[in-house]
Amino acid sequence: MKQIYFDNAATTRVDSKVIDAMLPYFKDKFGNASSQHFKGKEGKEALDKSREVIAKEINAKSEEIIFTSGGTESNNLALKGLFFSNYPKKDHIITTKIEHDSILNVCRFLEKNNAKITYLDVDNEGFINLEDLKEVITEKTIVVSIIHGNNEIGTIQDLEKIGKICKEKGVLFHTDACQSFTKTKIDVKKQNLDLITLNSHKIHGPKGVGGLFIKNGLQITSLFHGGGHEKKLRSGTENTSGIIGFSKAVEVVNSKDIQKMEKLRDKLINGILKIPNTKLNGHLKKRLCNNINISFNNIEGEAIGGHLENIGIYASTGSACMSNTLETSHVLKALGLSPLESNSSLRISISKYTTNEEVDYILKELPKIVERLRSISPLVN
Amino acid sequence: MKQIYFDNAATTRVDSKVIDAMLPYFKDKFGNASSQHFKGKEGKEALDKSREVIAKEINAKSEEIIFTSGGTESNNLALKGLFFSNYPKKDHIITTKIEHDSILNVCRFLEKNNAKITYLDVDNEGFINLEDLKEVITEKTIVVSIIHGNNEIGTIQDLEKIGKICKEKGVLFHTDACQSFTKTKIDVKKQNLDLITLNSHKIHGPKGVGGLFIKNGLQITSLFHGGGHEKKLRSGTENTSGIIGFSKAVEVVNSKDIQKMEKLRDKLINGILKIPNTKLNGHLKKRLCNNINISFNNIEGEAIGGHLENIGIYASTGSACMSNTLETSHVLKALGLSPLESNSSLRISISKYTTNEEVDYILKELPKIVERLRSISPLVN
Repeated sequence: MKQIYFDNAATTRVDSKVIDAMLPYFKDKFGNASSQHFKGKEGKEALDKSREVIAKEINAKSEEIIFTSGGTESNNLALKGLFFSNYPKKDHIITTKIEHDSILNVCRFLEKNNAKITYLDVDNEGFINLEDLKEVITEKTIVVSIIHGNNEIGTIQDLEKIGKICKEKGVLFHTDACQSFTKTKIDVKKQNLDLITLNSHKIHGPKGVGGLFIKNGLQITSLFHGGGHEKKLRSGTENTSGIIGFSKAVEVVNSKDIQKMEKLRDKLINGILKIPNTKLNGHLKKRLCNNINISFNNIEGEAIGGHLENIGIYASTGSACMSNTLETSHVLKALGLSPLESNSSLRISISKYTTNEEVDYILKELPKIVERLRSISPLVN
Repeated sequence: MKQIYFDNAATTRVDSKVIDAMLPYFKDKFGNASSQHFKGKEGKEALDKSREVIAKEINAKSEEIIFTSGGTESNNLALKGLFFSNYPKKDHIITTKIEHDSILNVCRFLEKNNAKITYLDVDNEGFINLEDLKEVITEKTIVVSIIHGNNEIGTIQDLEKIGKICKEKGVLFHTDACQSFTKTKIDVKKQNLDLITLNSHKIHGPKGVGGLFIKNGLQITSLFHGGGHEKKLRSGTENTSGIIGFSKAVEVVNSKDIQKMEKLRDKLINGILKIPNTKLNGHLKKRLCNNINISFNNIEGEAIGGHLENIGIYASTGSACMSNTLETSHVLKALGLSPLESNSSLRISISKYTTNEEVDYILKELPKIVERLRSISPLVN
């Protein structure tokens, strides 16, 4: 049976060019980048080059990028690092109700450590209200942390407008860009960003690697203490092969792939919305090029996912990070969906490898599945 | 010029069998192990299998292993995790003066957070005194954390005897086994271990992966909050390719390689000690199979390293983690070496790939280098 992977928001296939770039760092250039001899310098060069590639992508300086083990670590380092270096002078963090769990659960942890957290509401398309943001910033506010492209519904916040407010009010601005990085333009200067969470495995790079942009001069407390790697901010032997893979994944991104994904996304959205009683979650255009999230009335998203899997199509009902729990999505709840609507949702996330044929196939099969499920749904009959 | 790599305590070449095991997890089995569909299950199976392999190696249960980004993270998680889950009821940690920086600097961080730390002395071969240990354990002691095989001098502590004392006194026992794992037998039951730090890149596995054995039932505070991966102890998308590489590296270890390394180590030690005015650091036999650390009187280890590099031999003067600083080794200092002796030291660390010819070559070249350097040393003349 042909397999069709529509869960690229969970993770992506590693690009063969990325694998080719990594292999020498397993085999010959395997040195410890902190070693002083030639084998160390080979590793160090890889780090320097990678840092440059990633910095350039967001209009930052090389020395403003540190490497981590992934998005979760970067989000933890950003918020805990800022809180513990500012507390007790300042104790307030502003975020939203639609963040990834690696922001929300960090905030809950910080609340137990005397942090005050404001969780901003979003409208029914997932956007924060800029006036609300202005109002909640106080003298005690350390940072505004707002997800760029949402992992469930794809909504892209207006970083430039948020950054302008943060600058005017004199507070720091962090964004979790795990889903948006390389898909939607990030410019640290134009958007006035102080910290950005980046990761590799959502963009056809390896798992276990991520980055954190930290604006020059900013002080944060480390999560890891040790040998003092990464400007003393992140101790631990540098994962050179992973890091070179990460930067190669950034290098091979091209705008044609993005445009292709946007077209396929729109074709999927329009096609699926032809099924009666369906509703798009998120905004039609201000959304990630690879994200489709639809609520199907009166049936379980899990059931649709199961039937799709039976014919070799892999999609998701939420974020992979939470999909082994059966909790209702906090993101869809924040949009105002009822638990019933929320549980009827399906996330389809495409990649540059997604083909027109794959899109046609799901558009052909999905209406039949929905019809069949509705025909046996106790909610319909 | 032929390159001879004698810095395997810093990091190792990835075994080609390990690369082969990893490749499918970049290419086809790239799913997110937390996804509920088939592609997720492929990843989950890899994790389960890897956990089993690593647990078996130390006589633990699969569910007692969690995966991390490496030794530094595991050491941070172990000590911070134990401290913050026990404080303020208990506040005391016992360690040694010869730990890796990822223990020592964590302890210094914890001291700023009200921890009381006892740093045990070691004798001139690097062993702790068991009577000293017994004496310093108090009712407030949370854990005894003692490095198994030392990364600089190779000394292997007697875990069984230490574990017995910890059990009798009712305190937890953690060991940093980054250098010893698979080289010297670890048995969590026989040695009464509660936590063990493990890593991959010292044993021909990939960088960016490590593990922490946590005995069933033990409560520790997480470093990362997020999606609740790894029994809620370590959130973040699992690095499946790295983890499968780590477990493959464990699987391919065999006792013949260890015996071969021991022979080459002893040949190197005996050969180098024939150079006048040299001294072995650490114990002759109770040392890691791959570690040679020698002090050369009246010359700089850095200078020897530089001359060796000129002829394609890569060795080290300390741990890679600290080799970009010019500080005197805290390990050699703890052994009682003067700064002059300490700075005259060279670490040669071999691997299963080290050949007899490579050993012969350095044994031929090293005396000439030492003689030349001593002939121009202001300390000799």
